[in-house]
Amino acid sequence: MSRAAGPSATDDDRPLVISVPHPRSLALILTDARRRQLFDSYQVVECEPGGLAALPDPVLAAARYIIGQPPIDAATLERLQSLRCIFNVESNLIDNMPYPTLFERGIHVVTTGAVFAQPVAELGLAMALDLARGVSTAARAFREGREAWGGDGNQGARLIGGSEIGLIGFGDLGRALHRLLTGFGVTIRVFDPWVPDAILRGHGVVPATLEEVMAESDTVFTVAAVTSENQAFIGAAQFAAMRAGASFVLLSRADVVDFDALMAAVRSKHIQAASDVFPEEPLAPDHPVRTLDGFLCSAHRAGALDVAFKRMGDMVLDDMDLMDRGLPPMLCKRAERETVARMRSRPVTTN
Amino acid sequence: MSRAAGPSATDDDRPLVISVPHPRSLALILTDARRRQLFDSYQVVECEPGGLAALPDPVLAAARYIIGQPPIDAATLERLQSLRCIFNVESNLIDNMPYPTLFERGIHVVTTGAVFAQPVAELGLAMALDLARGVSTAARAFREGREAWGGDGNQGARLIGGSEIGLIGFGDLGRALHRLLTGFGVTIRVFDPWVPDAILRGHGVVPATLEEVMAESDTVFTVAAVTSENQAFIGAAQFAAMRAGASFVLLSRADVVDFDALMAAVRSKHIQAASDVFPEEPLAPDHPVRTLDGFLCSAHRAGALDVAFKRMGDMVLDDMDLMDRGLPPMLCKRAERETVARMRSRPVTTN
Amino acid sequence: MSRAAGPSATDDDRPLVISVPHPRSLALILTDARRRQLFDSYQVVECEPGGLAALPDPVLAAARYIIGQPPIDAATLERLQSLRCIFNVESNLIDNMPYPTLFERGIHVVTTGAVFAQPVAELGLAMALDLARGVSTAARAFREGREAWGGDGNQGARLIGGSEIGLIGFGDLGRALHRLLTGFGVTIRVFDPWVPDAILRGHGVVPATLEEVMAESDTVFTVAAVTSENQAFIGAAQFAAMRAGASFVLLSRADVVDFDALMAAVRSKHIQAASDVFPEEPLAPDHPVRTLDGFLCSAHRAGALDVAFKRMGDMVLDDMDLMDRGLPPMLCKRAERETVARMRSRPVTTN
Amino acid sequence: MSRAAGPSATDDDRPLVISVPHPRSLALILTDARRRQLFDSYQVVECEPGGLAALPDPVLAAARYIIGQPPIDAATLERLQSLRCIFNVESNLIDNMPYPTLFERGIHVVTTGAVFAQPVAELGLAMALDLARGVSTAARAFREGREAWGGDGNQGARLIGGSEIGLIGFGDLGRALHRLLTGFGVTIRVFDPWVPDAILRGHGVVPATLEEVMAESDTVFTVAAVTSENQAFIGAAQFAAMRAGASFVLLSRADVVDFDALMAAVRSKHIQAASDVFPEEPLAPDHPVRTLDGFLCSAHRAGALDVAFKRMGDMVLDDMDLMDRGLPPMLCKRAERETVARMRSRPVTTN
Repeated sequence: MSRAAGPSATDDDRPLVISVPHPRSLALILTDARRRQLFDSYQVVECEPGGLAALPDPVLAAARYIIGQPPIDAATLERLQSLRCIFNVESNLIDNMPYPTLFERGIHVVTTGAVFAQPVAELGLAMALDLARGVSTAARAFREGREAWGGDGNQGARLIGGSEIGLIGFGDLGRALHRLLTGFGVTIRVFDPWVPDAILRGHGVVPATLEEVMAESDTVFTVAAVTSENQAFIGAAQFAAMRAGASFVLLSRADVVDFDALMAAVRSKHIQAASDVFPEEPLAPDHPVRTLDGFLCSAHRAGALDVAFKRMGDMVLDDMDLMDRGLPPMLCKRAERETVARMRSRPVTTN
Repeated sequence: MSRAAGPSATDDDRPLVISVPHPRSLALILTDARRRQLFDSYQVVECEPGGLAALPDPVLAAARYIIGQPPIDAATLERLQSLRCIFNVESNLIDNMPYPTLFERGIHVVTTGAVFAQPVAELGLAMALDLARGVSTAARAFREGREAWGGDGNQGARLIGGSEIGLIGFGDLGRALHRLLTGFGVTIRVFDPWVPDAILRGHGVVPATLEEVMAESDTVFTVAAVTSENQAFIGAAQFAAMRAGASFVLLSRADVVDFDALMAAVRSKHIQAASDVFPEEPLAPDHPVRTLDGFLCSAHRAGALDVAFKRMGDMVLDDMDLMDRGLPPMLCKRAERETVARMRSRPVTTN
Repeated sequence: MSRAAGPSATDDDRPLVISVPHPRSLALILTDARRRQLFDSYQVVECEPGGLAALPDPVLAAARYIIGQPPIDAATLERLQSLRCIFNVESNLIDNMPYPTLFERGIHVVTTGAVFAQPVAELGLAMALDLARGVSTAARAFREGREAWGGDGNQGARLIGGSEIGLIGFGDLGRALHRLLTGFGVTIRVFDPWVPDAILRGHGVVPATLEEVMAESDTVFTVAAVTSENQAFIGAAQFAAMRAGASFVLLSRADVVDFDALMAAVRSKHIQAASDVFPEEPLAPDHPVRTLDGFLCSAHRAGALDVAFKRMGDMVLDDMDLMDRGLPPMLCKRAERETVARMRSRPVTTN
Repeated sequence: MSRAAGPSATDDDRPLVISVPHPRSLALILTDARRRQLFDSYQVVECEPGGLAALPDPVLAAARYIIGQPPIDAATLERLQSLRCIFNVESNLIDNMPYPTLFERGIHVVTTGAVFAQPVAELGLAMALDLARGVSTAARAFREGREAWGGDGNQGARLIGGSEIGLIGFGDLGRALHRLLTGFGVTIRVFDPWVPDAILRGHGVVPATLEEVMAESDTVFTVAAVTSENQAFIGAAQFAAMRAGASFVLLSRADVVDFDALMAAVRSKHIQAASDVFPEEPLAPDHPVRTLDGFLCSAHRAGALDVAFKRMGDMVLDDMDLMDRGLPPMLCKRAERETVARMRSRPVTTN
């Protein structure tokens, strides 16, 4: 269970890390250099998700960090007297540990989901540009010898530059999209009831209602995570309120929209759409969205880039270094007492 | 030939414009509002490209502006005593008028090709993002029920953010691309022998040789117009020098590359490519690039957006207004005594 | 003690706020509109710093927020069963409440010191520009009829644009300075042992050692708060290592530098300096820094702008609104379990 | 008159430059490296302003460039058969050469005044910040032991960040100011009748009338050169229309304002002002502006920095290199047929 370099060397005064990164692996989240850094700077005890309680007392007593989110019962947590931080590298918070006690004891539970913001935002922009210019549709026509040349191929084509953009949600992903759009000279309206207007204005975006975002945008990016409160809050009425020919790009969770209504709005040619997420994944082979013209599909590929996973490891090691020096973590995002229950209710996160 | 509101009204003291916008039309380049502005503020004489010499002397003598590039012989030019500017809305300069005399007399010949920079740059970025993330390839697979989900679908996927970008050419189009990339945190190297290093540095890009651009970029955008000097200057050696897995995006003219060598480099899986221009247009139905995996094709659609054409008319009217007030044109780009011959050698413009 | 609109109305179900903003006042930190908002949305009980324990049980039991940092003993905290947040509007954390219990109970203690970042940064830039161009020195000479005209008055003058900048510290203030310098095309090196390199790089600045910052900058801004660890860590050796003619701008705390060594470095003409903070405040009338040429003095005026104080109130009310909705505070900065002791050691804040 | 390395070596095929940079000198405008480059790459004939006509025919016939603006009569110009460009390094265009012939022959006359934009803009921002925060006034008080500490010293202090800025003029200098203000989050209104709205909007500033700029700005920067048309176009009415407490910063020419009205507006405490230019220079020792509180004075020092002069030489050499290769100049600004007369009427320019 433990490596040779592990804690058996009783005079090893390096801090102890319990590694349970399932469903990720250390190989996924660490570059070679970072892996060496981990094993050089720390005693690392690797264990299986279910194996935590079975670790010897000295290991649990010494453990400063846990990488992963193994189930932890109250008794085991009691034995983890040196624990400073649990690095949840899966991003979703499962309700499998006594959060109130963790908060009381000041043990950080942090997530690394922010690494997905940049890759998801880039795919989102790629999709918006694709819809605006018909890139993939025209590429398919070209492949099949049906292409239209020059202006003939640009019916309905439009620019993102100078257009009006709507963001539903302004977390890490919304902010990454905002950053990518810096050079486009766009107006950005944001609907996010969790983010105060002062913060939105500080970022140079316009606070707006959902209605304003839907009605006054050429492209709407949906980047809000689903909670119990916002199931399918974007439906037929919202799509009908969109500008004719506008684009709806769905990047977070299929559950925030009425997916059938979205397909209907595209089928009627009122709007175009792109989505990386679907009501069921994988999707049925005969699902009608597959061949719906004006609907660009991506098979939940937005975030899962190798470079994103490797950045997880970077963040974990950088935050360990801060906590080793008596400082709070700065790279990973902390679970908050107020919102952890809400975050736990998310079956899968955007990021 | 002339409209009712034309110069027959001898007491009309509005400046006179001869309109010969062929192959464009006033309807293409003017919004309704701009069209009204033109006809309200000016006497407009519309004529066919070959009809200029046949216009009555008073019309020629009074003409302050010509929209279009009709053939003009020396004798006709002599009759155009009030001429201040020829607005070439086609963008290419054809050798059909006595340029030396135009320069001597200080008559501006200006082009409106800058309107294409933004649409071409946006398509270029769309293509680069498509190659980096496999958007159109994955969309086709999804349509056909062959999609790979999540990380399985991201083999070779990479970010543009934080990557190294090469630009071959730094005219309007290169600058537009640079602007679009503002929010991506990229390093941009530029090879453009016509632009002094001080100007490149002033824009925040790194002056570089062609070799450096090819060898040190994750994505190369080719945005240089072809001249007699740079036919096929990017060939097999240059593609071989690129990073494995890098992207080559061709936006200006097919003639600047050895197209066969480009296809070979893609076929060998060394690089990916995207192109909006081709050695022959339209392309033969059986041209092998059509089905070449890793090569994204667009049928010369990058610039020809309605919004771009309408901006031409905006520029023409804004510059007329400046010249009416005794100022030089500022929106359109002037043909230069030094480079007009070189620009004329371009069979087609970058747009 | 309590207003008429206060908690005597037993059927008042508005959340209860205890207001003890000393040494600030509600009038200082709230605009009229914000004051109305506070008193409309909340029951407000105003009390003196020493009067908290004497408040009736129902008030303490109902209090959701405290504005200010009155002394709180363990017994009183026990009575504050609904408390969610203490808004410290003074910015310094005094050791006058049981922080461990606050952390255990998950009661936020937050500070509003971030409001000072923008005004201090603007004064810092003003001082750097003043030293670079001799603004105030030349203005005094002009007043006294001793001015030198044109280039004669520009001995030693230099640009900030394109120069190399060093920041010692990269908290709110360092980031505000970085933002103000966006348009100057400068290279910025940062020394901040509390901020990981990845975060610095993410902001587009260069992580550096103290030695590099001192030796390779044309202007050094010192924006680090003093802690027990960094008393006078910038002294004669550091000043000697600076570039001849460079500027040292001190914005945070006089204690981080050896002030005599700084004066000596200026007196020797090796560097120029500006400071908003001094070893003793107010400063002795005959202190030699007052008339030291090349040393620009400001009497701790950098942060204390009315607009900054009013922003405190904005932040407090926005964060109350978030917490009323079950969300964590986002505008104010939280005291952290790890660093609160260190923050408490600061006799005066950066701002 | 000519250097040893001059054109006497008849087999020297380096292009020939006539150097008459008066009132500048080559030493002023060239770094050592650039001076070497000039003398290595070109035959350089140095002469006095009045000495051009007396140069030997072969020198005049071979001269490709003139650095300076010596008087040139028609006969001498006729002898300058290889001339491509006159580099006016003084910036003002004096009416001492046959401009119409120069334009006909396509000989460029270019100016290097753009080098002053950055230094003048930096001083302008320094002055605006000084007025907003009372930097120099407080420094003088501190020197004299009369300083007010903390908030007591901040009566009337305000931020530039987030404020409304007006620019009168949007040439090189206005654009440099706009760039410096990038990080301040300001709204910028511009009045410049010579610049079309489309160009202003393209820069992200708001086209405005003079009335709007005066009435809706917290700080007005006057960066317009004086022409015969705009003498004293900003007077008592305009100053009265400004916001109470606003700042007026004069950077271009004293003649564009009614200077007495400006002083009166400051004396009445309605506005504050700063100026780098004055109705008479040098100014009378007893001129009342010297001791006028709220009026910050600088003795025409804004542009004349050594680094600016050295950039002149950089531009000259870079443009020579372009023209040697058959390209038009790109760094220096060309005199325009339409505006040269107007530019000549400017007795002195800002830039």
